[in-house]
Amino acid sequence: MTASNLVKLKPGDTIGILGGGQLGRMLAMAAARLGLRSQVFSPDPDSPAFDVVQRATCAEYADVEALELFANDVDVVTYEFENVPAATAMVLAARRPVLPAYKILETTQDRLIEKDFISKLGIGTADYADVSSVATLRTAIERIGLPAVIKTRRFGYDGKGQAIIRQGDDIAQVWDDLGTKSAILEAFVPFEREISVIAARSASGEVECFDVTENEHRDHILKISRAPAAIPEALAAQARAIAEKIAAALDYVGVLAVELFVVPGNGKATVLVNEIAPRVHNSGHWTLDGASISQFEQHIRAIAGWPLGKPVRHGDVTMTNLIGDDILSYEQWLTVPGATVHLYGKGTPRPGRKMGHVTEVTPASRSSTEAR
Amino acid sequence: MTASNLVKLKPGDTIGILGGGQLGRMLAMAAARLGLRSQVFSPDPDSPAFDVVQRATCAEYADVEALELFANDVDVVTYEFENVPAATAMVLAARRPVLPAYKILETTQDRLIEKDFISKLGIGTADYADVSSVATLRTAIERIGLPAVIKTRRFGYDGKGQAIIRQGDDIAQVWDDLGTKSAILEAFVPFEREISVIAARSASGEVECFDVTENEHRDHILKISRAPAAIPEALAAQARAIAEKIAAALDYVGVLAVELFVVPGNGKATVLVNEIAPRVHNSGHWTLDGASISQFEQHIRAIAGWPLGKPVRHGDVTMTNLIGDDILSYEQWLTVPGATVHLYGKGTPRPGRKMGHVTEVTPASRSSTEAR
Repeated sequence: MTASNLVKLKPGDTIGILGGGQLGRMLAMAAARLGLRSQVFSPDPDSPAFDVVQRATCAEYADVEALELFANDVDVVTYEFENVPAATAMVLAARRPVLPAYKILETTQDRLIEKDFISKLGIGTADYADVSSVATLRTAIERIGLPAVIKTRRFGYDGKGQAIIRQGDDIAQVWDDLGTKSAILEAFVPFEREISVIAARSASGEVECFDVTENEHRDHILKISRAPAAIPEALAAQARAIAEKIAAALDYVGVLAVELFVVPGNGKATVLVNEIAPRVHNSGHWTLDGASISQFEQHIRAIAGWPLGKPVRHGDVTMTNLIGDDILSYEQWLTVPGATVHLYGKGTPRPGRKMGHVTEVTPASRSSTEAR
Repeated sequence: MTASNLVKLKPGDTIGILGGGQLGRMLAMAAARLGLRSQVFSPDPDSPAFDVVQRATCAEYADVEALELFANDVDVVTYEFENVPAATAMVLAARRPVLPAYKILETTQDRLIEKDFISKLGIGTADYADVSSVATLRTAIERIGLPAVIKTRRFGYDGKGQAIIRQGDDIAQVWDDLGTKSAILEAFVPFEREISVIAARSASGEVECFDVTENEHRDHILKISRAPAAIPEALAAQARAIAEKIAAALDYVGVLAVELFVVPGNGKATVLVNEIAPRVHNSGHWTLDGASISQFEQHIRAIAGWPLGKPVRHGDVTMTNLIGDDILSYEQWLTVPGATVHLYGKGTPRPGRKMGHVTEVTPASRSSTEAR
C-alpha cells in the first residue's frame, strides 16, 4: 500500500474511479480537462461514466481478478459513492493508493459511528440514540421525544431506509417496517434551512471550501441548490470551520460534503451537522458552471497530489435537479437564456432517478460568504 | 444522403467526429454534457480526443471500409478541422448527414476562392491577387504594393505556407521558397487590432454570436484572446453582421469563426475579413469557462438539430494559450486564483504545439458589446 502523501500524478496518468454513475462521469470529465485519463470500474454495463472514458472495467465489486487488473492499469483509485465494500477497497489499497482512504468509510458508512465521531469533535448534531430492538426504540423515544426520525445505520440514501415517528404511531409496526436490527433514532430538527459545505482537503492538509450552499429537498431528494446561502457570514464561517475540522479529523484527501441544519436559536441561529458524504455531492454541482473550478476538479486535484484551486464564483448560482420525468423538459431548458444544461446519459427516467441538472448564474446580488 | 434539416438527435445518440485533436476532444466533452455520445475518427493512435470517448476509430481518412463502419455507428458526422479530404467527406455524406455540409470546405479550403466569396458578398477584405508564377507575382505586387503577404492557397495554418514580402526582397527567391503554383498575394493590412466572431447557425437559419473577441498572436499563433473586444459597439455589431451574412450565404450549420482586422479609418475604424474557419476556433475557447454555453456546445446543438443556446458571459474573460514549453508552467497556473486550466492530454511539447489553455474571468468592467 502506497502512502497517500506520495501520490503525485503527471498529465497523462490514469485515475481509477469506482462507480459509473453521474458523479463518476463528471469526475472523469474533470480529470480529462486537466490532461489526466480515467478508467471506470462499474458492474453496470449501461454506466453513464463509461461514455466519457476510453477504458472501462465492467465487473462486480467482488471480482478480485478484475479489481487486480484494474489496479494495475491506474495510478490512484477513488470512488463516487460511499458504500464501496470494505473488501473491494482493501484489494485495491494493497496495490494502489485509494483516496480518500477507505478506512474513512468505516466512519461514514454507519450513521451511528458517524454521529459519535462528530459529537466527539465537539460539533453539534441532533440528539440521537442507538436502536437495536423495539425495547431500545421505546427507551430512545422516551429520552429524545417525538417527532423523531428512525434510520437504518447503513446503506440509506435519498430518504431510503428512514421514517418519521410521530405521536400516536405504532412503534412496534414502525420497527418491523424498517426491517433492520441496527438503527439510529434522531431527534426531529425544526430547521430553518438546510445548507451544505463542499470542502476539499489535500494530502498536505490544505483545505479549500466552496461558498456555503443552501438546499431544498423534495421527497427526500435534493431539488434545488443555491449559492451562496442566504445566511449571515458568521454562520457560514462556522459551517466552513466545521467542515474543515471534520476533514482534518478524518485525515481526508479529496472532496467531502457536510450537510447541516440551520436552527433558529435565542436570537441567534446555530448549525447542526446532519451527515457527511465522503465524496463529491449533488449540492456542489453548481460549481461546474458557477465557479472557476468545480468540486470535481478539486477532488481530482486533491487525489492527484496537485495544488487545490482557489475557486472564484461567477455570480449568484441556482442549480435545479432534473429528477425522473423532469428530464422530458430538457428542450425547454435548452432555450432558457443563461441556463447550462447537463444530461447524464441515463436511459429510462424512473421516478426519483437523477437524470440531469441545470445551472443558472446571475450577476452577484447576494453577498458572498467569503472573500478569499 | 440525408438532408441536414432533418437531423434531430435524441439524448443517447452518437455524433461522429472527424479529427482527434483538442478541438475534437472538447467537442466530445460538450456532447457528453448534453447526454450525447461521440465516436472519434482519427489516424493518430495518440489522439487526445480518444481519451474522452468510449468508441474510437483509428484509421486513415482514405480508408473507405473504416469510414463506412464509422458512418454506420453514428447519427451525424462533423469535423474539427477544415482540411477534411473531399473524398472522405463524400463517402460519409452518402451514408449520414455531414455538418457543416462538406461543399462549404471547397470555399474555405482555398484562400482565393474564400476571398472571392467574401468579396462577392460586398464584405471588405485586404486587396488580393491570384498568383501562379513569378511573372504573375510581379504583376500582383505592382498593383497591390509592398509590403504584402504571399500565401499558399491551400493547407496553410498558424503562419505556415506564408511569407511577408518587403521592398527590396528577391521576388524570384520568395516564390521558389513558397514551393507552390497556387498562391494568393494579399496587401499588408496596417491593422489596429485583430478580432474574431464565433457564430453558430442552426439548420433553420437562427444565428447566435458570442461577444466579439480580441486576439493577440505571437509567431503567427494565437497567444491571448480577450472578450469582449475593446471596440465600440457599432464596430462589434458590424463584425457580427458580417459573420451572420457569411454563415447565411454558406447555408452553414454549426459553429463558424470569422477573423477580422480592425483598420483605423478617417476618424472611424472599419473591419476587413482576414479568414473564415468552418469549425470551432481557438479564439472561442474562452466560452468554455467565461459563458453559460461554450462554442463547443453551440456546435453540438446546431448539428444535433437542437435549439441554439443564448449564452451569457460571466465577466471579462482572458484566454491564454499554453504553446510548446509553456505547458511546463501548468503547476504555477493551477495555483492562480480564479484561473481555469485546460490540458489537452498531448505527449510531447514541441515548439508551436498547442498543449493547453488557461481562462481567467474577472467581474465585468469593460462594457459588453451586446446585451441579448
